[in-house]
Amino acid sequence: MYQKFYSTVAAEAKGSDVRRLLKYATMENFISFAGGLPSKDAFPMDSIERATQKAIDLYGYQNFQYGATEGVPALRQEIVKIMADREITVADDELLITTGSQQALDICAKAFIDKGDYIICESPTYLAAINAFKAYQPNFLDAPMDDEGIIPEAVEDYLKNYKVKFMYIIPDFQNPTGRSLSQERRKQLVAIANQYDVLIIEDSPYAELSYDGKPEKPLKAYDTEDRVIYLSTFSKIVCPGLRLGWVAAPAKLTEKIALLKQATDLHTNQFSQYVVATYLQDNDINAQIDHIRDIYRVKRDAMLRAIETYFPKEVYYSKPTGGMFIWAELPEHIETRPLSDEALEYRIGFVPGDAFYPNGGFYNGMRINFSNASIEEIETGIKRLGDLIKTKL
Amino acid sequence: MYQKFYSTVAAEAKGSDVRRLLKYATMENFISFAGGLPSKDAFPMDSIERATQKAIDLYGYQNFQYGATEGVPALRQEIVKIMADREITVADDELLITTGSQQALDICAKAFIDKGDYIICESPTYLAAINAFKAYQPNFLDAPMDDEGIIPEAVEDYLKNYKVKFMYIIPDFQNPTGRSLSQERRKQLVAIANQYDVLIIEDSPYAELSYDGKPEKPLKAYDTEDRVIYLSTFSKIVCPGLRLGWVAAPAKLTEKIALLKQATDLHTNQFSQYVVATYLQDNDINAQIDHIRDIYRVKRDAMLRAIETYFPKEVYYSKPTGGMFIWAELPEHIETRPLSDEALEYRIGFVPGDAFYPNGGFYNGMRINFSNASIEEIETGIKRLGDLIKTKL
Repeated sequence: MYQKFYSTVAAEAKGSDVRRLLKYATMENFISFAGGLPSKDAFPMDSIERATQKAIDLYGYQNFQYGATEGVPALRQEIVKIMADREITVADDELLITTGSQQALDICAKAFIDKGDYIICESPTYLAAINAFKAYQPNFLDAPMDDEGIIPEAVEDYLKNYKVKFMYIIPDFQNPTGRSLSQERRKQLVAIANQYDVLIIEDSPYAELSYDGKPEKPLKAYDTEDRVIYLSTFSKIVCPGLRLGWVAAPAKLTEKIALLKQATDLHTNQFSQYVVATYLQDNDINAQIDHIRDIYRVKRDAMLRAIETYFPKEVYYSKPTGGMFIWAELPEHIETRPLSDEALEYRIGFVPGDAFYPNGGFYNGMRINFSNASIEEIETGIKRLGDLIKTKL
Repeated sequence: MYQKFYSTVAAEAKGSDVRRLLKYATMENFISFAGGLPSKDAFPMDSIERATQKAIDLYGYQNFQYGATEGVPALRQEIVKIMADREITVADDELLITTGSQQALDICAKAFIDKGDYIICESPTYLAAINAFKAYQPNFLDAPMDDEGIIPEAVEDYLKNYKVKFMYIIPDFQNPTGRSLSQERRKQLVAIANQYDVLIIEDSPYAELSYDGKPEKPLKAYDTEDRVIYLSTFSKIVCPGLRLGWVAAPAKLTEKIALLKQATDLHTNQFSQYVVATYLQDNDINAQIDHIRDIYRVKRDAMLRAIETYFPKEVYYSKPTGGMFIWAELPEHIETRPLSDEALEYRIGFVPGDAFYPNGGFYNGMRINFSNASIEEIETGIKRLGDLIKTKL
């Protein structure tokens, strides 16, 4: 009955696999490698609780009143420091706080994409970015990756043949592959963006989740022509439930993106901004990051070990040095979408790989999350999954 | 330099007057009637502080983890009760919690508007709804109002001549006019929607802010064919800084709108949802609403008295029985946009009326907010504004 009222975008919108699988997460004995959920052990609960009380004491009714679209100064100052740690200098008018970095994806899409515009992304790329962008009806030019990330020559080929608005890159411990873009390629991509006059949206939620040394410098640190729009979030280093992300971009772009945010939700939650600002003032975020690294490094190692033990050797899998995900590719005749339904009977969740290809066409990949399950669940769950895959060979 | 990258929508986006005027609000001796800010006295600070601690104790890490797009069950249950007080029965699958009702406007627009689609709204109508809708490039059919609200015959004339997706109606103490839609017209609009097969978006943030008796029943209470999408918010009855609103709509529509919310910000702030759920469980919201009414009734009366005393008699003004705004219309030769700039020198802020007309063409209106300023400021400010207007006669 409502079909005739829907916009083209609404008519075509489909549920996300991650969200669909979330509801199984509460089933008894179910082990989920599907979502990208942080481990609850990684939340600094006591410090956040103290920060909550202190924010109420310090900022009083301002926690609960309407606020500025750009975000509260106290948190903006803390983000400037975090960005400095990532070797990015941000002036005050180059920063916008968003309702999670999902909102940053939505408003960047709103800012740049007219129906039919071309954008470049990694193949595969982040599922929820695909969904955010799709609402504005672009054409996706998805460029292949190898273990060093997106291949610059493929990007350049696209740029020679299409007028592109931006390239969307997740350089660090990419979602879904876990791969990182090499330093050399980061420089190359910025040079290519300069040469062909396009913007870069650099999405970096996982930079700090680096388990084997420092992550590479961000693309924005190599940006000489003010082309890089940098997105990040507190979801992975503090917690996701407070929905706090940010955009660091040239001032003119930031102003425009802020206007579009205004029409979207007026401004970001004030109380959460003050709580996280207070938390960051009173705590050493780098100690918190080290704590998270220690938790996830062990889980990453356990999962790689389990995969080596229980997956048949015909399966390719990435060996991430950070982040939350391992990417596996099964022999081509094994389609992971029906497999993911079958896996539910084995009480295992993973996200089938085709969800991460905006133009479809790849059916044998799977994204496996290692940050949320316990070590025991990783061992048990990967064994179950390996057993299931073996029945398909 | 960035112009060529912008979408059509971004290229045309302009700053909101409300937001532009916000920055003057901190000037010494400045009196703002511009924003629609609640009075800070209206926030239940102590109860919210207790609810904050209790939510942490009760819900622990769930306050900080990712959550469901639909919102947390504890808050959903409380909203069902609030809706029952408004004579609306809502089933669980008919409810979606949003990041303020601004987000509800954005995702409803995303759900229904393709470029060039027709929508009906009141003339004048809510500025931030215009901005949310404009991002999806509709044609606005704005129907005239009188002191009983939008005129049904004007709506019907549009429906005879255009294929319309929805009508957007703010029935209670409308923003910007303060007018309420009569009971008779509510029934008429629902009947017209049935006859011409269109949806109604009923935006009701102010229903409880009724100072002279009960508000009329919502349009949704008259909805016999599942056509009304009802929007509301905690911004006016609890506080706006937590950015919590909701959509009550037929289940099929709710499911679709939830999908679009997912692509926009994944889900609403978990902690704020648990805090407000706990607050509502432990406190009598109707006592809180009575408290707010007592504060705003006195302000409304003070402002109406001051306007009667200080405005020249050539000025028309509405006499709202609720809400936060009075609407004034000056003699036609006085344009309120330049006047609002001049008013800044008098240290007075108001929003020029043309901002509330999606198709422009009306230049002599002004929206005056009475909820935020103190009684003394209302007296002083309206006198200053009256003096300024007199210089233009």
